Amino acid sequence: MTQLQGIAASSGIAIAKVYRLEAPDLSFDKKKVENPEQEISRLQDALEISKSELEKIKAHTKKSLGDEHAEIFSAHLLVLSDPELIQPIEDKIKNDNVNAEAALSETANMFIDMFKGMDNEYMRERAADINDVTKRVMAHLLGVTFPDPALINEEVVIVADDLTPSDTAQLNKQFVKGFTTDIGGRTSHSAIMARSLEIPAVVGTKEITSKAGKDIMIIVDGINGDVIVDPSDEQIATYQQKQEDFEKQKQEWAKLKDEPTLTSEGEHVELVANIGTPEDVEGVLNNGGEGVGLYRTEFLYMGKSQLPTEEEQFEAYSSVLKQMGDQPVVVRTLDIGGDKELSYLDLPEEMNPFLGYRAIRLCLERDDIFRVQLRALLRASVHGNLKIMFPMIATLDEFRQAKALLEEERANLTSEGHEIAEGIEVGMMVEIPATAVIARQFAKEVDFFSIGTNDLIQYTMAADRMNERVSYLYQPYNPAILNLINNVIEAAHAEGKWAGMCGEMAGDEIAIPILLGLGLDEFSMSATSILPARTQIKDLSKKELASYKDVILAMGTSEEVVAFIKEKTQMK
Amino acid sequence: MTQLQGIAASSGIAIAKVYRLEAPDLSFDKKKVENPEQEISRLQDALEISKSELEKIKAHTKKSLGDEHAEIFSAHLLVLSDPELIQPIEDKIKNDNVNAEAALSETANMFIDMFKGMDNEYMRERAADINDVTKRVMAHLLGVTFPDPALINEEVVIVADDLTPSDTAQLNKQFVKGFTTDIGGRTSHSAIMARSLEIPAVVGTKEITSKAGKDIMIIVDGINGDVIVDPSDEQIATYQQKQEDFEKQKQEWAKLKDEPTLTSEGEHVELVANIGTPEDVEGVLNNGGEGVGLYRTEFLYMGKSQLPTEEEQFEAYSSVLKQMGDQPVVVRTLDIGGDKELSYLDLPEEMNPFLGYRAIRLCLERDDIFRVQLRALLRASVHGNLKIMFPMIATLDEFRQAKALLEEERANLTSEGHEIAEGIEVGMMVEIPATAVIARQFAKEVDFFSIGTNDLIQYTMAADRMNERVSYLYQPYNPAILNLINNVIEAAHAEGKWAGMCGEMAGDEIAIPILLGLGLDEFSMSATSILPARTQIKDLSKKELASYKDVILAMGTSEEVVAFIKEKTQMK
Repeated sequence: MTQLQGIAASSGIAIAKVYRLEAPDLSFDKKKVENPEQEISRLQDALEISKSELEKIKAHTKKSLGDEHAEIFSAHLLVLSDPELIQPIEDKIKNDNVNAEAALSETANMFIDMFKGMDNEYMRERAADINDVTKRVMAHLLGVTFPDPALINEEVVIVADDLTPSDTAQLNKQFVKGFTTDIGGRTSHSAIMARSLEIPAVVGTKEITSKAGKDIMIIVDGINGDVIVDPSDEQIATYQQKQEDFEKQKQEWAKLKDEPTLTSEGEHVELVANIGTPEDVEGVLNNGGEGVGLYRTEFLYMGKSQLPTEEEQFEAYSSVLKQMGDQPVVVRTLDIGGDKELSYLDLPEEMNPFLGYRAIRLCLERDDIFRVQLRALLRASVHGNLKIMFPMIATLDEFRQAKALLEEERANLTSEGHEIAEGIEVGMMVEIPATAVIARQFAKEVDFFSIGTNDLIQYTMAADRMNERVSYLYQPYNPAILNLINNVIEAAHAEGKWAGMCGEMAGDEIAIPILLGLGLDEFSMSATSILPARTQIKDLSKKELASYKDVILAMGTSEEVVAFIKEKTQMK
Repeated sequence: MTQLQGIAASSGIAIAKVYRLEAPDLSFDKKKVENPEQEISRLQDALEISKSELEKIKAHTKKSLGDEHAEIFSAHLLVLSDPELIQPIEDKIKNDNVNAEAALSETANMFIDMFKGMDNEYMRERAADINDVTKRVMAHLLGVTFPDPALINEEVVIVADDLTPSDTAQLNKQFVKGFTTDIGGRTSHSAIMARSLEIPAVVGTKEITSKAGKDIMIIVDGINGDVIVDPSDEQIATYQQKQEDFEKQKQEWAKLKDEPTLTSEGEHVELVANIGTPEDVEGVLNNGGEGVGLYRTEFLYMGKSQLPTEEEQFEAYSSVLKQMGDQPVVVRTLDIGGDKELSYLDLPEEMNPFLGYRAIRLCLERDDIFRVQLRALLRASVHGNLKIMFPMIATLDEFRQAKALLEEERANLTSEGHEIAEGIEVGMMVEIPATAVIARQFAKEVDFFSIGTNDLIQYTMAADRMNERVSYLYQPYNPAILNLINNVIEAAHAEGKWAGMCGEMAGDEIAIPILLGLGLDEFSMSATSILPARTQIKDLSKKELASYKDVILAMGTSEEVVAFIKEKTQMK
């Protein structure tokens, strides 16, 4: 028996035998060639076949997992069409007279090393993307068969060095009970896909491939991040029990699907979901969401070669609004720029993209882009209960300017004869410390606040959460963060407005009792967190939690807060 | 007459005839060479001569301007010894069989374009450095004479596309009355040097070289950023008057050199200076500084090939403490990392260096480096009135850890028989929003706060102030910033501690009345701002300004604050 600790990437327990997903042998000899044109033509063929395979995987993913997940393959397809990658390969073939394999491998490795060398999760994922697609091209150049996880037809746990997004997208949940890898993190594409597929996964074990041979029994505990190779019968029994408990808990959660969210004293709390595409609405409804608290509109703009039209946007917004009926849908206007680049916008490279030209900053300058989105939103408003919010607001001026553009487009549309809903609420994200500090001043002018904790924490602590060396400072329970959140909620209530939260913190088991005590009105989280949260809130007394407010806000450290709240809510 | 508007880079008025500092003709033919070894040897010679010239300029600068300014030439010397630049040039000569000129030019331009392409002032300055040094090398390769501003022997205003740091360092104040350039910014090395030399300068005029021919009269208004080419007699008279007024004002300021800083009701306010090296102390004393509010210790670590020893540091700290006598000297421990790299530490590249691994974050992990500094500081403490502060503190834990290391080293030194001053105050920079928000919690454990507004504003507004596209968000008077500052001051006073400020804001004419009203105890600024600030404060009533506090803190925008304070203090 060997036990390893990794990163819990997708919850649930898997018990089955090991299936080794081995990378194919892509070794080759570097050769001088007589006819470089022929090598370039071989390269072109391999690129074309790879593209057509990726198109198929993308279509399959779109059907099984939705638009958002399919986007990764749009990105892969763009890599294979990117002249900045392909041109140097062809140049190398021509200038150095080498075979396509050598030129592909050397060029790709240069890019991969460059991205990998950056101490930053996002760029490392880009390295993984290039690695994923160039391996496929290499396999075609060599005539080697690429592993096809779609062919698995017995119950297994996949063990691999890493799973590429294309591997993960092809997993059949009926047979693949779980997976575990040497590398990867919670935010890698395969981890995100695993959560959507509800396949238990533990990634980043560092050495599972050297410990788990073919057909050996293995347990993957995606709740705690444990992996046990060759478990004892006793261990298997224990984990079967855990598996049952987890399933039971899921059933418990499911019972609350059509129930309102009530605290122990019967006070209603609004639990809503974060979505990225119209396809995500189904998951919201299946998980008992009472609305959409954050509709990220970036996916409409990504993986494309040009801006989406007003009509395309109108269709997407209308679809979400119609599906949600009377329930609120809070749409966040475009938050692009920074690390989220759009190739067709040609944004400048920045030294600190998280402190740069993005979101509302970009939209106010590029109002040609922004107005199209505002028009599409206003036109869609008649189809449901729309609320609009602006991201990355730092100053009152910015909010006023954004709102003025909205009003201008409302007037334009009305004079063009379009119908627009009455009383659309217009709010803002609170994700920049400045706005949380003087929320009182903003509360007079907005209809609502939605606290974006991912960024708010990052800026308040001055720590890039993607940067492993300082990620210890990404502290949601730091009393500074809680004081800012409290300030926002108090400011909203003083002006009769509501305050929600759409960062990861809103669905967090430790944060929920704290936020309830601070009086947060709306919690927006990933759809799969809604039922667990509803279950948890059922047993929480808002009145009791509110009585701890002053004590918590006067604490000095995160650790104190966590210990206190665990004790008070009798959490394990 | 032609009038241009540029960036006021160094204050004062210059009226004289134009001296065109032209770049030498560095054009060359790209040639195939038979003997690459010979080209490499020519390159080596040109590098060596350039290095010896730079060594001389560095020595001259050190004498005339001090260590801090001389550092730029250490950086230039490192460029010329950097294998990452030199090796590719030699490779190009060998692989492409081209002459040294072509290899130097193409390689340097590649690096320059790369740095220039980044939308960020700091990196663009690095491009300017490489440009500066490679031009010198090129001139030697071509046997062309490099312009020598040290030879100017009549009263002139220099007009140039740009001034390199080496040009600026050689300016003779007796003859060079001012300068103006097409490009450059307030933080370029030449602008900083001009301020130290007290030579009026306007940079970034975009087109002065195309407007101002040789020997034409020109006026450079370094107070407002105006440049007038071929002025009328009336204009000359007006500016001569302005020049006189400016000189008179400087004399007025000088009268206050040995006076205490008192408000109109006679309350004392502490005006201290920011310094970077022991050589800067002279400027502090000449400008009537009442102490050092920020001694940046980074220069000890920069432009070197290895870490400074405990003894080197002890000498530097002792020198500053001895020169300042009983007056307080607040030393900030190492704030390196982020954009301030040290080649010999091999720090990882980061996606958002301003939100990254730097300052106390690095020092707590690399306590081998940190302990050496703490030991040097503690040993130097017997030579004056030392206060120690830690930069970039985000959490109470970090402050406690840093202080614990200090106490450990104190115990070690004592047991080694060293003498250490009693009652050294230990404080922290407040430059991360989190600490300003819960300053009350920190105030219980620190001896003092020093608010670092440059970073605090940047993080609170989530805007990189080096990034031109979002620099409009760098708003010192934003009510959010003022509320945070107020919170820090109130927290300090509630615990009987003092609060200072060492960001640029502390010396700002509009900020001073606001900060006085908020009760700030200590203002730390560049030495040359101290006498103007003392003059301004003489006419300000702290009591009156304090009565505006609640009104100002409840305002919504920067503009409101500025208009209000200008009206109340009858500022133009």
